Amino acid sequence: MTRHFNFCAGPAALPQAVLERARDELLDYRGRGLSVMEMSHRSPEFVAIAEQAESDLRELLAIPDNYRVIFTQGGATMQFAAVPYNLLGLGGSANFLHTGIWGKKAIAEARHLFGAAPVVASSEANGHRAVPCQADIALADDAAYLHYTANETIGGLEFDYVPRGVRPDGSEVPLVCDMSSSLLSGPLDVSPFGVIYAGAQKNIGPAGLTLAIVRDDLLDRGCAGMPSLMGYKAQAEAGSMVNTPATYSWYLAGLVFQWLKHDIGGLAAMDALNNRKAEKLYAAIDGGGLYSNPIATANRSRMNVPFVLDDDRLDEPFLKEAEQAGLLNLKGHRSVGGMRASLYNAVPEAAVDALVHFMADFERRKG
Amino acid sequence: MTRHFNFCAGPAALPQAVLERARDELLDYRGRGLSVMEMSHRSPEFVAIAEQAESDLRELLAIPDNYRVIFTQGGATMQFAAVPYNLLGLGGSANFLHTGIWGKKAIAEARHLFGAAPVVASSEANGHRAVPCQADIALADDAAYLHYTANETIGGLEFDYVPRGVRPDGSEVPLVCDMSSSLLSGPLDVSPFGVIYAGAQKNIGPAGLTLAIVRDDLLDRGCAGMPSLMGYKAQAEAGSMVNTPATYSWYLAGLVFQWLKHDIGGLAAMDALNNRKAEKLYAAIDGGGLYSNPIATANRSRMNVPFVLDDDRLDEPFLKEAEQAGLLNLKGHRSVGGMRASLYNAVPEAAVDALVHFMADFERRKG
Repeated sequence: MTRHFNFCAGPAALPQAVLERARDELLDYRGRGLSVMEMSHRSPEFVAIAEQAESDLRELLAIPDNYRVIFTQGGATMQFAAVPYNLLGLGGSANFLHTGIWGKKAIAEARHLFGAAPVVASSEANGHRAVPCQADIALADDAAYLHYTANETIGGLEFDYVPRGVRPDGSEVPLVCDMSSSLLSGPLDVSPFGVIYAGAQKNIGPAGLTLAIVRDDLLDRGCAGMPSLMGYKAQAEAGSMVNTPATYSWYLAGLVFQWLKHDIGGLAAMDALNNRKAEKLYAAIDGGGLYSNPIATANRSRMNVPFVLDDDRLDEPFLKEAEQAGLLNLKGHRSVGGMRASLYNAVPEAAVDALVHFMADFERRKG
Repeated sequence: MTRHFNFCAGPAALPQAVLERARDELLDYRGRGLSVMEMSHRSPEFVAIAEQAESDLRELLAIPDNYRVIFTQGGATMQFAAVPYNLLGLGGSANFLHTGIWGKKAIAEARHLFGAAPVVASSEANGHRAVPCQADIALADDAAYLHYTANETIGGLEFDYVPRGVRPDGSEVPLVCDMSSSLLSGPLDVSPFGVIYAGAQKNIGPAGLTLAIVRDDLLDRGCAGMPSLMGYKAQAEAGSMVNTPATYSWYLAGLVFQWLKHDIGGLAAMDALNNRKAEKLYAAIDGGGLYSNPIATANRSRMNVPFVLDDDRLDEPFLKEAEQAGLLNLKGHRSVGGMRASLYNAVPEAAVDALVHFMADFERRKG
């Protein structure tokens, strides 16, 4: 068996210990004589797996009791629809911060379904190199909520503060955040948020599974005519079993939560490790003459580090030699080019060390 | 490792050979140094896996070229919304055959989203013991399509013919079928259908993954305001990658298709095996005095066999002793009680033999 270092932006690396556990239990879950994949979602065995996963997630993030955790499907893209469906039932407009490609997709879906969806602050003018500051956020009079993307996976732009959504009349609206590529990368104060959602395929588990963490008091704002599967209230009341959930992915997420608790030692330890990894890579980018990253220092993403080579004719040799060195999936997103190294939780520090070493060596030889 | 016989109605048993292959490849897919779960959905490795799966499915079902295959998420429940969203954009009403609990859920979702959704034939009057015959199906003047459930998983009622949807004026409408619990149980002529859909967790793969097989000419009937992820046209054009698909489940479905082709020998062989399994179990039910199944012989489900014991005080001992004998998940659905043995493709004939033997022995001792 070979395991290379995998910098994929998502579906992303999973902890090796989690994969080993999954492998060992794949045909026979702890002596039950069947795979988790083959269990009824309503069986006592699976219900125990599901409840343990939720309880571990709540412990890791210290989720307050007045929040419901929903394990659903469809990725962030389904949440781009689910959020306005669930929060615009009493009227008002969805307000957005626009800081990159994922935010733009969320805006497009809200407009597609509901017409107007004002962008109330944007980093478009600076090429998405720095997030808007709080003073620049000007909500609409009828704002029902404020949506932002904590970390733009493609641009590598991350918020260094939690914005507030305040209407011109001074009243505050619920804050909604797409945390697909940052949730669980470190401790989080959940209490300023109305809704947090995340596709699983970065720091949580396999693609498809999707988390939504919803404050109780927002469960009664749903539009009458939304698809049943998208309703937060229905899912919260049904324990995320409005229909058969993605049981195996839910189980794997539970293994990841256990790994975070027991192997890593919790989110503060994860945070420190992620800081160290990012610092090493940004230092390597800034330290030489061949590599560069354009993002304002305070907003550089810890999870997704895009960089370009001074001479783009070196892109191909860089990627080819990196792959030969066991460093996989460093190619930037097709919409922006260049390189991108994603440093999610499951990417070990040794992977970053190997990448930094390779980059320095490559620069010496080709730069 | 222990593997028991698993009669679960879904998520259901998977072929042991598939699980073994998945286990062996879990940490390192064929020397690539990473798990399929950790691959970008746009990587050449995963694209090859996805294309192979589609091509094998097309071969197994002999799907004509004018049909698109969509690998999506959300189960049949999401399709209950997706079908009317995709087929009512030019107006008209969704018409339904009502033959049990799943059909009823599909009707409820169409009504929830679109108001009227006429039931144009129903087996409610006979307690869902026999499906309506073609002559009893009376479509509405404005019918846009006819929807039915090929096999009712809970009731154990299966259509023994493919209905046609003919309006009073003689014109024919597209036929839409929920085949969640029967697709791939045997050969199928796809050509009478406009849309076939199926949740994966019976004969295809892990829960979450969902298939839709859609005739080309129906791709332009979508409603403007539906969630993007549900659009058949968008998914067909994007190769089911409007967003990150459930990659690992797609891969597992591909392993199941390979198993059907190479280990089983195709759907005709699967069909013969499924017939044999069902005949053995129904014979055991009908042959003694303790067990009974109320469904009209022609409409008895091959995949889901509900039965009751003459004396329901024996239910608990039956289930307990069955479990001790390694026969798992025989309890009937909580809405109907009694027993249910699901005989999906991955349930081996030896499982049915063991169950029949147990039933006869139990009757001898307790009946």
